Amino acid sequence: MARFLKNIDKKAGLPPGSLIFIGQQRMDEPRLRIIDFNPQTLRKEFIPSLEAAGPIKTTATTSWLNIDGLHDSDLIKRIGEEFDLPALMLEDIQDTGQRPKVEEYPDHVFITMKMLFLNEDQSEVWSEQLSAVLTENYLITFQERPGDVFEPVRNRIDNPNGKMRVRGCDYLLYTLLDCVVENYLKVIEKMGERIEEIEDEVLENPEPDLLEEINLYRREIAYVRKAVRPVREILSKLKNLDSEVIVHETMPYLRDLVSLEEQAVDSTEIYKEMLADLFSTYNMAIGSKLNDIMKFLTIFATIFIPLTFLAGIYGMNFESMPELHYKYGYYILLGAMSAVAVGMLLYFKKRKWI
Amino acid sequence: MARFLKNIDKKAGLPPGSLIFIGQQRMDEPRLRIIDFNPQTLRKEFIPSLEAAGPIKTTATTSWLNIDGLHDSDLIKRIGEEFDLPALMLEDIQDTGQRPKVEEYPDHVFITMKMLFLNEDQSEVWSEQLSAVLTENYLITFQERPGDVFEPVRNRIDNPNGKMRVRGCDYLLYTLLDCVVENYLKVIEKMGERIEEIEDEVLENPEPDLLEEINLYRREIAYVRKAVRPVREILSKLKNLDSEVIVHETMPYLRDLVSLEEQAVDSTEIYKEMLADLFSTYNMAIGSKLNDIMKFLTIFATIFIPLTFLAGIYGMNFESMPELHYKYGYYILLGAMSAVAVGMLLYFKKRKWI
Amino acid sequence: MARFLKNIDKKAGLPPGSLIFIGQQRMDEPRLRIIDFNPQTLRKEFIPSLEAAGPIKTTATTSWLNIDGLHDSDLIKRIGEEFDLPALMLEDIQDTGQRPKVEEYPDHVFITMKMLFLNEDQSEVWSEQLSAVLTENYLITFQERPGDVFEPVRNRIDNPNGKMRVRGCDYLLYTLLDCVVENYLKVIEKMGERIEEIEDEVLENPEPDLLEEINLYRREIAYVRKAVRPVREILSKLKNLDSEVIVHETMPYLRDLVSLEEQAVDSTEIYKEMLADLFSTYNMAIGSKLNDIMKFLTIFATIFIPLTFLAGIYGMNFESMPELHYKYGYYILLGAMSAVAVGMLLYFKKRKWI
Amino acid sequence: MARFLKNIDKKAGLPPGSLIFIGQQRMDEPRLRIIDFNPQTLRKEFIPSLEAAGPIKTTATTSWLNIDGLHDSDLIKRIGEEFDLPALMLEDIQDTGQRPKVEEYPDHVFITMKMLFLNEDQSEVWSEQLSAVLTENYLITFQERPGDVFEPVRNRIDNPNGKMRVRGCDYLLYTLLDCVVENYLKVIEKMGERIEEIEDEVLENPEPDLLEEINLYRREIAYVRKAVRPVREILSKLKNLDSEVIVHETMPYLRDLVSLEEQAVDSTEIYKEMLADLFSTYNMAIGSKLNDIMKFLTIFATIFIPLTFLAGIYGMNFESMPELHYKYGYYILLGAMSAVAVGMLLYFKKRKWI
Amino acid sequence: MARFLKNIDKKAGLPPGSLIFIGQQRMDEPRLRIIDFNPQTLRKEFIPSLEAAGPIKTTATTSWLNIDGLHDSDLIKRIGEEFDLPALMLEDIQDTGQRPKVEEYPDHVFITMKMLFLNEDQSEVWSEQLSAVLTENYLITFQERPGDVFEPVRNRIDNPNGKMRVRGCDYLLYTLLDCVVENYLKVIEKMGERIEEIEDEVLENPEPDLLEEINLYRREIAYVRKAVRPVREILSKLKNLDSEVIVHETMPYLRDLVSLEEQAVDSTEIYKEMLADLFSTYNMAIGSKLNDIMKFLTIFATIFIPLTFLAGIYGMNFESMPELHYKYGYYILLGAMSAVAVGMLLYFKKRKWI
Repeated sequence: MARFLKNIDKKAGLPPGSLIFIGQQRMDEPRLRIIDFNPQTLRKEFIPSLEAAGPIKTTATTSWLNIDGLHDSDLIKRIGEEFDLPALMLEDIQDTGQRPKVEEYPDHVFITMKMLFLNEDQSEVWSEQLSAVLTENYLITFQERPGDVFEPVRNRIDNPNGKMRVRGCDYLLYTLLDCVVENYLKVIEKMGERIEEIEDEVLENPEPDLLEEINLYRREIAYVRKAVRPVREILSKLKNLDSEVIVHETMPYLRDLVSLEEQAVDSTEIYKEMLADLFSTYNMAIGSKLNDIMKFLTIFATIFIPLTFLAGIYGMNFESMPELHYKYGYYILLGAMSAVAVGMLLYFKKRKWI
Repeated sequence: MARFLKNIDKKAGLPPGSLIFIGQQRMDEPRLRIIDFNPQTLRKEFIPSLEAAGPIKTTATTSWLNIDGLHDSDLIKRIGEEFDLPALMLEDIQDTGQRPKVEEYPDHVFITMKMLFLNEDQSEVWSEQLSAVLTENYLITFQERPGDVFEPVRNRIDNPNGKMRVRGCDYLLYTLLDCVVENYLKVIEKMGERIEEIEDEVLENPEPDLLEEINLYRREIAYVRKAVRPVREILSKLKNLDSEVIVHETMPYLRDLVSLEEQAVDSTEIYKEMLADLFSTYNMAIGSKLNDIMKFLTIFATIFIPLTFLAGIYGMNFESMPELHYKYGYYILLGAMSAVAVGMLLYFKKRKWI
Repeated sequence: MARFLKNIDKKAGLPPGSLIFIGQQRMDEPRLRIIDFNPQTLRKEFIPSLEAAGPIKTTATTSWLNIDGLHDSDLIKRIGEEFDLPALMLEDIQDTGQRPKVEEYPDHVFITMKMLFLNEDQSEVWSEQLSAVLTENYLITFQERPGDVFEPVRNRIDNPNGKMRVRGCDYLLYTLLDCVVENYLKVIEKMGERIEEIEDEVLENPEPDLLEEINLYRREIAYVRKAVRPVREILSKLKNLDSEVIVHETMPYLRDLVSLEEQAVDSTEIYKEMLADLFSTYNMAIGSKLNDIMKFLTIFATIFIPLTFLAGIYGMNFESMPELHYKYGYYILLGAMSAVAVGMLLYFKKRKWI
Repeated sequence: MARFLKNIDKKAGLPPGSLIFIGQQRMDEPRLRIIDFNPQTLRKEFIPSLEAAGPIKTTATTSWLNIDGLHDSDLIKRIGEEFDLPALMLEDIQDTGQRPKVEEYPDHVFITMKMLFLNEDQSEVWSEQLSAVLTENYLITFQERPGDVFEPVRNRIDNPNGKMRVRGCDYLLYTLLDCVVENYLKVIEKMGERIEEIEDEVLENPEPDLLEEINLYRREIAYVRKAVRPVREILSKLKNLDSEVIVHETMPYLRDLVSLEEQAVDSTEIYKEMLADLFSTYNMAIGSKLNDIMKFLTIFATIFIPLTFLAGIYGMNFESMPELHYKYGYYILLGAMSAVAVGMLLYFKKRKWI
Repeated sequence: MARFLKNIDKKAGLPPGSLIFIGQQRMDEPRLRIIDFNPQTLRKEFIPSLEAAGPIKTTATTSWLNIDGLHDSDLIKRIGEEFDLPALMLEDIQDTGQRPKVEEYPDHVFITMKMLFLNEDQSEVWSEQLSAVLTENYLITFQERPGDVFEPVRNRIDNPNGKMRVRGCDYLLYTLLDCVVENYLKVIEKMGERIEEIEDEVLENPEPDLLEEINLYRREIAYVRKAVRPVREILSKLKNLDSEVIVHETMPYLRDLVSLEEQAVDSTEIYKEMLADLFSTYNMAIGSKLNDIMKFLTIFATIFIPLTFLAGIYGMNFESMPELHYKYGYYILLGAMSAVAVGMLLYFKKRKWI
């Protein structure tokens, strides 16, 4: 399947707002978790069904409803009805091939972007789509499957004296986005370490394995780039949003986040360029190694050419070849051959060919 | 014929607004179809002539008049007269070499763009021009020939309870554009699948066939790009249009469509870059394969050079060559030759040449 | 002479507004033609001198004065005086190395741009400078020599019922510009046809002639690009001009012209890229052809190496070489040689080298 | 470790504003220095602790507090409390992987950027982060370790009649930034000298060492670029800042600094391009050198081929080879061989191959 | 010394506005010339000292003070005092490594840019810095050494009836800038002529000399580009300046100058691209020439391989080789050898290898 595009076929021709999951199902049952807190109280539990969430829409506490698993269109639809989400937004949530974007609605802000993960041997990046609906007193997030980068945030919520507990949903969303962007940097850094190692190895010992690795990282960096770059635009839109759901105090944090994101984008570009350079350096190193071999062999062959010719001369059957009858003719010839060989070697040395 | 430009000769020098068909005639008779509906009623039929369309200009129902076939200048002219379309617009409709564009008139909006189709073995893209005239209560579309990507839309109109039936012409146009852009993505995805396959094949087995395919896809992607990129601009103009023919409720759909179109543009760019990389990877793979052959053969030849020289030495006819008279001279020489060959092989091995 | 720059030497240091012809004189005597019309009357004649033009400045008819030939500074000066044209404008008219531009003056608009022509075997583009001064009731155009792309316009003026006859000078100028831009497209299309042919030929049979042609078209496309690109800016300025000399009714035509011009610019860019690709494809095709030859020859030579070695062995003069005395030794050796040759061929086949 | 990214791991998941040093600790104890002056008085001393700084917040003198060493989070925190600095700013100060930026706060301006240093053999650039907090009557700067480029500034402060003494903190900050940017230019110039030397050496004698140096400088210039480019944006923001902490009189100096910075950016770009060109020139020079060797050797070998063949002919054992019995057959053959060799040499000369 | 950067070391750390000459001293004594005129009178003389200039600050005549030679900091300082020029401006005047720029002050405009000169064999461009201070009734220009491109301007001032004499300082400055920009075009044209010649030579006869020339021109064009490009921005700022020192009548001339400058920038870009193309064309031509040689030699060698093998066969010493005893065996073999050679030649011909 084309990795840079999700299967668009499923949706083609359906009315807009039709709920259909586009992606790869990664778990059996969607899992819902509610975290609901204010400075005094904290509720944090997995809930069996949407109904168990309670009246989070209206309570003044900061409520975070997280859904892991997007394939259950019924659930998504019921969430949409419960929280008055537009059909187009629900469609976007279920389409994991979505381009990262932010959209402002009268009383909520919708964000969708990619989380990036690196597999264990740091050779492949895979992405998971994160969608978030932010309103003044609740935040709903959608992920493709359990396991994320938000554990530190949940730990900070546990801390009854932490800043998290006094801030609202917008700050909560900021901390989640901060985790996502920091994770971008971590993924890029991990790949970067290997890329900078490759740079040293290429000149020393250009193996075909290295080329494959260079090509692999070019593709992976292209993949990372596709996820990371649009986020810059998203964050900068978010920063300039004139919406009530983001309070004034959260702005400096978003500004800081923009700067972190720009670092991620910069690094991606730098490694992209570095890999293109590595590709041509590899080519050159390979060529240079082959050239060394060819030069050696050609010089080796060249030295034998006149010697073999001389041997050929004295292998001829002419009746009258006086040299053949000299007593030391054979030895003289061997000497002459050595002289020719040494002379050629010296000449090549002088011209700096060897 | 130059594929990236239609035959401009025909029109050169004619007064602007002259109606002349520029393109390749793809059917005998133009075909007209009228679809006319409101929540209660639905009329859907092919009509033999323009007159059979009825008073769609003034009725409050949503009317969609589709014309397949552009070569009948008389028909186009009569449509122009019937619906008060400017001559320049009619000229654009008939010129299939038209660049995609949107134009706003006081009481209608004119759009022209390309629909893309992939032939069966996914090796060639061809385009068909779609022009649309949108007013408050009717929509006229022009295509080059029968067969399009709009069947799902027609099916949705059939559904008496569907959203289509309560919305107006602008929403109808949106669903058509949505089909076109989704089809872009489908075409790009199909090509993308093959391109990503080629990527794997190139390193394994660089055949000239692959190069031809790479070049073919470069040309096709350039062709797709030429059709897809201007649509971004068109949709974003459409989104920002301050015209009465597009009602406020349709705006979120257009916004969503812009995001879909950006995905199409992004993918085109990614595959364009990927193909350029593939081209150089292919080159390298070919070069590397040849280098392997050359290295092998050169090393092979090099090993025989001193052996042949030795045979030449003992083929000489000097009277006094004591070795020739040794009893085991021949066998000793054969042994020496083997030793030289093995020594060279070891040396090459040590230097990692073989 | 540097083709991309006209001889600037002549003018260097002269006061601005000095009238001096910069270019190559292409005719003996400048030729003046006046076309003066309104819906009822038409006057169309070559005139011997400026004085014969009559009072075109003040009459309400649409008057078009065309001058072929720019080298007569006296004439240019007298025209300037007659029609109150600024000295700088006259200088620009005579300097055929002028960059295309549009300038707005209180009561006239000045445009200068290039007309492109292709020589007969479609291998060289040459340009002719067209300058135009547009006022409310007359239009003056300057060309370097007789022969242009405006014949269709003159024919349309002849038609007493045509739209031309009721429109003013601005519409006349538009039709001229339309001819120029359509001619750009025609020139690009002609070159494009040949370029797309070359694309096929390069892979089949990479001849040095093709390379020369590729290089030729790269230069010609660069030349076309230099003329075509600035016109986009000119037309878009013209479209947005808030001048009385261009009436509101002409605006839609200019808008249409902008779209035509963008097509010309796009095509130039596409062919420019295509030629750069062709250059590298040619290189690759040449390299690949040479590689085939080299591979064949090297494999051919390699097969003979061990055979010649064997012949050398049995050409040695050792006293005791038992094989030499075998009855069928010679035939056995010939058999062995054949076996070696066949074995090597099979090995090469197996490794897919041949 | 990835050089283009600092260790982001440490911070991941901590609440924003958490103070943790990210970088490499370069000294034991942070060192504080206070320079406090007005036209009449000057106090300039290292102080053992923050408390010893005195009431610099409120005094009307120009006070400059410099901290060398960022790893002591306690100290940073106390400075933050003393001067009311936001937690996010303190976090940025301690994170040496920070992207250069400027931020405006109601009553202070925060700048962070890189100082660049070149090691002794001019082969490696390392950077040190400089952060500065500017208010109306004090300036706090943070560096990673002792030793900087500000000595001339301190000397000018010593001069009781200098302009420094009458100007405020904003002018002081300007002079520091001026030193930093001038130092950029010095670093680039030093590298540029070597790069321009390499350019000459590459064509004369393309050694692998040169290639390594080219690659080294490509990486270093990329590193410099990453530090220098964002400063342009910073300075231009600073110039347009509408803040009270920068007085009107300092603006011309900032304008001048922008121009200096642009010179630095331009030079970086020029050397970046020059290095890319050098890379391909090196490649070509290497290839050209190898080609010369190969051409020589191939021509040398080619001359012996027919000679060896002739020797082979007369080494055959046919019974009836009349030439073998000619008296001067041997000498005639030697003559013929010489003729062939000379003839070939002349032919090669004529075709300009040697 | 790094050519793209002047010696920044001298200035590093000095207070801004410190007067120090940065550059290469090109004359002993600075030379001052005053040209002072109005329609009636003209004073034009070299003056021994600044004092001899007279009261040019206040007189209503158009006064032009030109200083050749910038190394005398005392003189520069005295000029600064006499005409109230800011210290930063004086510093810029003396720093010949200055980036071209324009700066507006309340009552004067400051411009600094490069004049370009080509050495005699058109292989090296050197630049001289021109700084100009324009006020309402005097113009001061600073050059590095005597000799400039302004002679035509001085001649036009001599003409008592010329336009120069009635216009003010701003028009005078315009004419000087016009000379500078026209000279850019002249320099580029001269180099362009040679570059277009090289283009033809490269394909015909790719000599290493050509490569050196290509590389030389790449560097020179980069140098020209660095001087020419910023001037576009300068002129366009100047054109839009809302300053009293530039009167309305001069604006059309500046507009014309912008168009001339754009021509210079365009040409630089075109030649830059052309040189990059030439570099790769040269590479290809060299490679293609070598390939021809190699192909010839390899084919030559290949033909002898089977012949030599045959000779080897019949040089073997087997007792029973019947062919050796045939009467015409030798001649038959020679015939067979010829047949093999001819057959191979025909085969190569057929495959279009020769």
